[in-house]
Amino acid sequence: MEKVNLSEKLSLFTEHWSPKIVGELNGQMVKLVKFKGEFVWHHHENEDELFYVVKGSFDMHLRDKVITVNEGEFIIMPRGAEHKPVAKDEVEIMLFEPATTLNTGNAGGEKTVANPERI
Amino acid sequence: MEKVNLSEKLSLFTEHWSPKIVGELNGQMVKLVKFKGEFVWHHHENEDELFYVVKGSFDMHLRDKVITVNEGEFIIMPRGAEHKPVAKDEVEIMLFEPATTLNTGNAGGEKTVANPERI
Repeated sequence: MEKVNLSEKLSLFTEHWSPKIVGELNGQMVKLVKFKGEFVWHHHENEDELFYVVKGSFDMHLRDKVITVNEGEFIIMPRGAEHKPVAKDEVEIMLFEPATTLNTGNAGGEKTVANPERI
Repeated sequence: MEKVNLSEKLSLFTEHWSPKIVGELNGQMVKLVKFKGEFVWHHHENEDELFYVVKGSFDMHLRDKVITVNEGEFIIMPRGAEHKPVAKDEVEIMLFEPATTLNTGNAGGEKTVANPERI
Protein backbone atom coordinates (compact mmCIF):
# COMPACT_ATOMS: atom_id res chain seq x y z
CA MET A 1 0.00 0.00 0.00
CA GLU A 2 1.67 3.18 -1.19
CA LYS A 3 0.51 6.72 -1.74
CA VAL A 4 0.66 8.25 -5.23
CA ASN A 5 2.05 11.72 -5.88
CA LEU A 6 0.41 13.18 -8.98
CA SER A 7 3.24 15.60 -9.88
CA GLU A 8 5.80 12.84 -9.61
CA LYS A 9 3.78 10.54 -11.86
CA LEU A 10 3.08 13.35 -14.33
CA SER A 11 6.82 14.00 -14.65
CA LEU A 12 7.30 10.47 -16.01
CA PHE A 13 5.76 11.09 -19.42
CA THR A 14 5.34 13.81 -22.03
CA GLU A 15 2.96 12.36 -24.66
CA HIS A 16 -0.46 13.85 -25.16
CA TRP A 17 -3.74 11.88 -25.24
CA SER A 18 -2.12 8.75 -23.82
CA PRO A 19 -3.62 7.90 -20.40
CA LYS A 20 -1.43 6.12 -17.83
CA ILE A 21 -2.87 3.99 -15.04
CA VAL A 22 -1.85 5.11 -11.53
CA GLY A 23 -4.43 3.37 -9.37
CA GLU A 24 -7.31 0.91 -9.33
CA LEU A 25 -10.27 0.46 -7.00
CA ASN A 26 -13.67 -1.22 -7.24
CA GLY A 27 -13.12 -2.05 -10.92
CA GLN A 28 -12.41 1.60 -11.67
CA MET A 29 -9.12 3.00 -12.91
CA VAL A 30 -7.39 6.19 -11.86
CA LYS A 31 -5.43 7.51 -14.83
CA LEU A 32 -3.28 10.53 -15.57
CA VAL A 33 -3.23 12.10 -19.00
CA LYS A 34 -1.92 15.24 -20.69
CA PHE A 35 -4.00 16.93 -23.36
CA LYS A 36 -2.81 19.43 -25.93
CA GLY A 37 -4.68 20.32 -29.11
CA GLU A 38 -7.95 18.82 -30.24
CA PHE A 39 -9.21 15.29 -29.61
CA VAL A 40 -11.83 13.35 -31.60
CA TRP A 41 -15.59 13.48 -31.03
CA HIS A 42 -16.65 10.30 -29.27
CA HIS A 43 -18.81 8.81 -26.56
CA HIS A 44 -18.62 5.79 -24.29
CA GLU A 45 -21.48 3.33 -24.58
CA ASN A 46 -21.38 1.94 -21.04
CA GLU A 47 -18.99 4.07 -19.03
CA ASP A 48 -19.26 7.38 -17.24
CA GLU A 49 -15.98 9.28 -17.12
CA LEU A 50 -14.65 11.90 -14.70
CA PHE A 51 -12.08 14.52 -15.76
CA TYR A 52 -10.36 16.38 -12.89
CA VAL A 53 -7.96 19.18 -13.86
CA VAL A 54 -4.70 18.96 -11.90
CA LYS A 55 -2.98 21.76 -13.82
CA GLY A 56 -4.08 24.11 -16.61
CA SER A 57 -7.51 24.16 -18.20
CA PHE A 58 -9.35 22.76 -21.21
CA ASP A 59 -12.59 23.13 -23.11
CA MET A 60 -15.00 20.22 -23.08
CA HIS A 61 -17.00 20.50 -26.30
CA LEU A 62 -20.49 19.02 -26.10
CA ARG A 63 -22.97 19.00 -28.96
CA ASP A 64 -24.85 22.00 -27.55
CA LYS A 65 -22.24 23.93 -25.56
CA VAL A 66 -18.63 24.24 -24.48
CA ILE A 67 -17.62 24.02 -20.82
CA THR A 68 -14.22 25.37 -19.77
CA VAL A 69 -12.84 23.21 -16.96
CA ASN A 70 -10.14 24.87 -14.87
CA GLU A 71 -7.59 23.71 -12.33
CA GLY A 72 -9.32 22.27 -9.24
CA GLU A 73 -12.53 21.48 -11.15
CA PHE A 74 -13.99 18.27 -12.52
CA ILE A 75 -16.63 17.32 -15.02
CA ILE A 76 -18.42 13.99 -15.36
CA MET A 77 -19.34 12.78 -18.86
CA PRO A 78 -22.28 10.40 -18.54
CA ARG A 79 -22.29 7.33 -20.78
CA GLY A 80 -23.67 8.09 -24.22
CA ALA A 81 -22.82 11.81 -24.12
CA GLU A 82 -20.78 12.91 -27.10
CA HIS A 83 -17.77 14.99 -26.16
CA LYS A 84 -14.51 16.35 -27.52
CA PRO A 85 -11.78 17.75 -25.25
CA VAL A 86 -9.78 20.66 -26.67
CA ALA A 87 -6.76 22.17 -24.91
CA LYS A 88 -5.13 25.31 -26.29
CA ASP A 89 -2.21 24.82 -23.93
CA GLU A 90 -1.10 21.64 -22.25
CA VAL A 91 -3.36 20.50 -19.42
CA GLU A 92 -2.83 17.74 -16.84
CA ILE A 93 -5.84 15.62 -15.99
CA MET A 94 -6.75 12.87 -13.54
CA LEU A 95 -9.39 10.47 -14.93
CA PHE A 96 -11.69 8.11 -13.01
CA GLU A 97 -13.36 5.55 -15.21
CA PRO A 98 -14.12 1.84 -15.47
CA ALA A 99 -11.26 -0.48 -16.37
CA THR A 100 -12.96 -1.17 -19.72
CA THR A 101 -12.94 2.47 -20.93
CA LEU A 102 -11.14 3.16 -24.23
CA ASN A 103 -9.92 6.76 -24.59
CA THR A 104 -11.55 7.19 -28.00
CA GLY A 105 -14.78 5.39 -27.05
CA ASN A 106 -16.87 4.53 -30.10
CA ALA A 107 -14.73 6.59 -32.48
CA GLY A 108 -11.54 4.53 -32.61
CA GLY A 109 -8.81 5.80 -34.90
CA GLU A 110 -5.15 6.62 -34.53
CA LYS A 111 -5.41 8.23 -31.09
CA THR A 112 -6.75 5.00 -29.55
CA VAL A 113 -4.67 3.58 -26.69
CA ALA A 114 -5.88 0.01 -26.24
CA ASN A 115 -3.66 -0.99 -23.32
CA PRO A 116 -2.71 1.99 -21.17
CA GLU A 117 0.63 1.67 -19.43
CA ARG A 118 0.84 1.50 -15.63
CA ILE A 119 3.32 3.98 -14.20
CA MET B 1 -24.15 18.54 -17.15
CA GLU B 2 -22.16 20.96 -15.01
CA LYS B 3 -18.59 21.14 -13.86
CA VAL B 4 -17.79 21.07 -10.15
CA ASN B 5 -15.35 23.47 -8.52
CA LEU B 6 -13.82 21.85 -5.44
CA SER B 7 -12.95 25.10 -3.61
CA GLU B 8 -16.45 26.42 -4.11
CA LYS B 9 -18.02 23.22 -2.77
CA LEU B 10 -15.56 23.10 0.14
CA SER B 11 -16.57 26.63 1.14
CA LEU B 12 -20.15 25.42 1.72
CA PHE B 13 -19.45 23.50 4.93
CA THR B 14 -17.22 23.57 7.99
CA GLU B 15 -17.91 20.30 9.86
CA HIS B 16 -15.23 17.67 10.17
CA TRP B 17 -15.63 13.96 9.31
CA SER B 18 -18.91 14.56 7.47
CA PRO B 19 -18.55 13.66 3.77
CA LYS B 20 -20.68 15.53 1.21
CA ILE B 21 -21.59 14.06 -2.17
CA VAL B 22 -20.48 16.18 -5.16
CA GLY B 23 -20.63 13.69 -8.01
CA GLU B 24 -21.65 10.18 -9.02
CA LEU B 25 -20.49 7.88 -11.80
CA ASN B 26 -20.59 4.16 -12.46
CA GLY B 27 -22.12 3.49 -9.03
CA GLN B 28 -19.25 5.35 -7.37
CA MET B 29 -19.55 8.54 -5.38
CA VAL B 30 -17.25 11.54 -5.40
CA LYS B 31 -17.32 13.15 -1.95
CA LEU B 32 -15.62 16.04 -0.24
CA VAL B 33 -14.74 15.93 3.43
CA LYS B 34 -12.72 17.90 5.96
CA PHE B 35 -10.73 16.07 8.60
CA LYS B 36 -9.36 17.49 11.81
CA GLY B 37 -8.26 15.44 14.79
CA GLU B 38 -8.40 11.68 15.07
CA PHE B 39 -10.95 9.35 13.48
CA VAL B 40 -11.89 5.82 14.57
CA TRP B 41 -10.13 2.63 13.49
CA HIS B 42 -12.28 0.87 10.92
CA HIS B 43 -12.32 -1.02 7.65
CA HIS B 44 -14.78 -1.49 4.80
CA GLU B 45 -15.82 -5.05 4.12
CA ASN B 46 -16.60 -4.69 0.42
CA GLU B 47 -15.37 -1.30 -0.68
CA ASP B 48 -12.03 0.14 -1.71
CA GLU B 49 -11.68 3.82 -0.90
CA LEU B 50 -9.54 6.57 -2.43
CA PHE B 51 -8.41 9.63 -0.45
CA TYR B 52 -7.03 12.52 -2.54
CA VAL B 53 -5.66 15.52 -0.62
CA VAL B 54 -6.94 18.80 -2.07
CA LYS B 55 -5.41 20.98 0.67
CA GLY B 56 -3.25 20.25 3.70
CA SER B 57 -2.02 16.82 4.76
CA PHE B 58 -2.95 13.96 7.07
CA ASP B 59 -1.54 10.76 8.50
CA MET B 60 -3.16 7.50 7.46
CA HIS B 61 -2.56 5.09 10.33
CA LEU B 62 -2.40 1.45 9.28
CA ARG B 63 -1.80 -1.44 11.68
CA ASP B 64 1.89 -1.69 10.72
CA LYS B 65 2.81 1.85 9.62
CA VAL B 66 1.76 5.45 9.19
CA ILE B 67 1.67 7.11 5.76
CA THR B 68 1.61 10.90 5.55
CA VAL B 69 -0.49 11.96 2.55
CA ASN B 70 0.20 15.49 1.31
CA GLU B 71 -1.53 17.92 -1.02
CA GLY B 72 -1.64 16.51 -4.57
CA GLU B 73 -1.30 12.90 -3.38
CA PHE B 74 -3.77 10.07 -3.01
CA ILE B 75 -3.89 6.76 -1.20
CA ILE B 76 -6.18 3.82 -1.89
CA MET B 77 -7.40 1.75 1.06
CA PRO B 78 -8.26 -1.72 -0.21
CA ARG B 79 -11.34 -3.39 1.25
CA GLY B 80 -10.60 -5.13 4.53
CA ALA B 81 -7.60 -2.95 5.40
CA GLU B 82 -7.91 -1.35 8.83
CA HIS B 83 -7.15 2.34 8.83
CA LYS B 84 -7.49 5.48 10.93
CA PRO B 85 -7.02 8.97 9.47
CA VAL B 86 -5.46 11.55 11.79
CA ALA B 87 -5.10 15.22 10.86
CA LYS B 88 -3.15 17.55 13.15
CA ASP B 89 -4.46 20.54 11.21
CA GLU B 90 -7.55 20.70 9.02
CA VAL B 91 -7.21 18.90 5.71
CA GLU B 92 -9.52 18.91 2.68
CA ILE B 93 -10.06 15.59 0.94
CA MET B 94 -11.78 14.28 -2.16
CA LEU B 95 -13.04 10.72 -1.73
CA PHE B 96 -13.88 8.26 -4.44
CA GLU B 97 -15.80 5.21 -3.24
CA PRO B 98 -18.86 3.05 -3.94
CA ALA B 99 -22.28 4.51 -3.15
CA THR B 100 -22.68 1.98 -0.32
CA THR B 101 -19.61 3.11 1.67
CA LEU B 102 -20.22 4.24 5.28
CA ASN B 103 -17.57 6.61 6.61
CA THR B 104 -17.01 4.56 9.77
CA GLY B 105 -17.13 1.20 7.95
CA ASN B 106 -17.48 -1.73 10.38
CA ALA B 107 -16.87 0.44 13.46
CA GLY B 108 -20.06 2.50 13.59
CA GLY B 109 -20.39 4.93 16.48
CA GLU B 110 -21.15 8.61 16.85
CA LYS B 111 -19.08 9.74 13.87
CA THR B 112 -21.19 7.67 11.46
CA VAL B 113 -22.92 9.65 8.68
CA ALA B 114 -25.53 7.31 7.27
CA ASN B 115 -26.92 9.59 4.56
CA PRO B 116 -24.34 12.07 3.31
CA GLU B 117 -25.76 15.33 2.04
CA ARG B 118 -25.45 16.32 -1.62
CA ILE B 119 -24.03 19.80 -2.06
